[in-house]
Amino acid sequence: MSEIAVVGAGAWGTALAVLAARRGHDVILWAYAAGLAAEIGRARENVAYLPGVSLEATIRVTSVLEQAAAAPLVLLAVPAQHLRGVCRTMAGHLRGTPALVICAKGIEVESGELMSEVVGTELPGAKVAVLTGPTFAAEVARDLPTAVTVACADAERGAAIVAALGGATFRPYLTDDVIGAQVGGAVKNVLAIACGIAFGRGFGDNARAALITRGLAEIGRLSVALGGRPETLMGLSGVGDVTLTCTSTQSRNYTLGVALGEGRRLAALLADRITVAEGVPSARAVAVLAARKRVDMPIALAVDAVLHHGADLDREIGAVLARPFRSEVERV
Amino acid sequence: MSEIAVVGAGAWGTALAVLAARRGHDVILWAYAAGLAAEIGRARENVAYLPGVSLEATIRVTSVLEQAAAAPLVLLAVPAQHLRGVCRTMAGHLRGTPALVICAKGIEVESGELMSEVVGTELPGAKVAVLTGPTFAAEVARDLPTAVTVACADAERGAAIVAALGGATFRPYLTDDVIGAQVGGAVKNVLAIACGIAFGRGFGDNARAALITRGLAEIGRLSVALGGRPETLMGLSGVGDVTLTCTSTQSRNYTLGVALGEGRRLAALLADRITVAEGVPSARAVAVLAARKRVDMPIALAVDAVLHHGADLDREIGAVLARPFRSEVERV
Repeated sequence: MSEIAVVGAGAWGTALAVLAARRGHDVILWAYAAGLAAEIGRARENVAYLPGVSLEATIRVTSVLEQAAAAPLVLLAVPAQHLRGVCRTMAGHLRGTPALVICAKGIEVESGELMSEVVGTELPGAKVAVLTGPTFAAEVARDLPTAVTVACADAERGAAIVAALGGATFRPYLTDDVIGAQVGGAVKNVLAIACGIAFGRGFGDNARAALITRGLAEIGRLSVALGGRPETLMGLSGVGDVTLTCTSTQSRNYTLGVALGEGRRLAALLADRITVAEGVPSARAVAVLAARKRVDMPIALAVDAVLHHGADLDREIGAVLARPFRSEVERV
Repeated sequence: MSEIAVVGAGAWGTALAVLAARRGHDVILWAYAAGLAAEIGRARENVAYLPGVSLEATIRVTSVLEQAAAAPLVLLAVPAQHLRGVCRTMAGHLRGTPALVICAKGIEVESGELMSEVVGTELPGAKVAVLTGPTFAAEVARDLPTAVTVACADAERGAAIVAALGGATFRPYLTDDVIGAQVGGAVKNVLAIACGIAFGRGFGDNARAALITRGLAEIGRLSVALGGRPETLMGLSGVGDVTLTCTSTQSRNYTLGVALGEGRRLAALLADRITVAEGVPSARAVAVLAARKRVDMPIALAVDAVLHHGADLDREIGAVLARPFRSEVERV
């Protein structure tokens, strides 16, 4: 695997391209917009999404998806709601069956599908793996220590992906639970909005810790209902990613929640941003999926109600925090 | 249970006394030092440990342990390393067999015992429960939303404790896993020091999230070796408390770690503080216990080596972060 393609030139895709280049690979970085591709290629920097990071000379930037689709290893780093469209476009251009590594987190709103299900439908027979975990792109790009989960049903292919991307400061750990590894990353942004709201409301750190704990239990229930294994939740893709996203002001979703908690309006907040707060569409997707699978997810439903149904923020958060006393342990 | 005694007048004991008083109980708050007891009683405020919080008129402050020992419900909130001595003094003064709720977190260094084991040895036949979870005392005293674990082998007694202390903003959840509920709170301070060191070293949020995740796995292994149940770790006493302690600058242990990571010396840091950074003795206790039970706990051992054996900080942290790639899931 000397050539690696990264599909998606946001912060995460760009950081992955830099990571792969530093590991000695020739990299093709694909951007949707021709203008952005040209600008990144000229500046040797993704000023809009990952400022301050120089692109290695071995990174070639393109907006021609066909070029990326020809690589033997393709990292998919487009926003969750755009993955299906990109896969459809790629379908005609794949050369053989490349290894596809899903690096996007989320649930497709329209279908309620996980990213692996979207790819499986659009690129049947594709060799799919998932890379996830607690990863702020800017820190990966700065070579700060980072540990991730690589989930792959085929142990040999998983090990090859680990070998291709792993290094002294970027540590991938393998699992074969492809479903379970995706659920934490998909739902955490919804939980991060809840934690942000609580913080913005001045509820304090105890309340946030309680929300994280109860939120993880929700995520575990959904994961098991979708076919994931409970113990996967204890790993980097679950506890690790949730902790990161729910406690750091670097998280777009957490800071969105804080602003909401402080009384700002969603529409105004979204208009201010060029980057996607994935938790906003995800809240809708999680609520639909929870209903379909009959999974009890009060925190996610509260966030969905506040974001998408005009529910009163104090009443929703109050209801979550005042749930009746009951047994601590829920088998997830 | 109209009368409740709180043994220990640090920040946590004082906050528990205020909580119990607001729930309508007559409270006896015991302080070790007669001078402190007199000062708190006079000022109606614990200026040294919980400034800014007025004590209800129904709180009586004393330094006579006999008075506290006579209550039907006694909350034990002394530092972990002092619990045995306090229990010995109490032994002659208990009236019948009061319900004892251990609110101290830690492992006794000398014996390697959990708090429930210490109490069990010194007060044989005592009716013991544990109250633990993500609880900054100052937030509880301000009536901010807080959820805790109450662990009790006897469901009826546990429910009575929940009823006595629970309210709109203080939410206890029951478990019968008395051992498992203690391990998170006992080891989290060691992990918080590790996370602080990583932050102080400038390693970033990804590294901290990885440390929290791997640290929780360590805690789970120790808990199971001591007889706790794995799923308890997912609750407030595990994930909740660890998350709180490892991500907030309100945590004494985390801030101690940050200062160490920034290059300050342990002795100087400890001399500056009046409150106990419980993780310092706990690191020793955990290391001893891990060796005795043959449990793999590389993060705790690294913290112990740095704090107590003059080990090089960068080498220890580097070794933890650079452990070989392996399977993500460890059955805890």
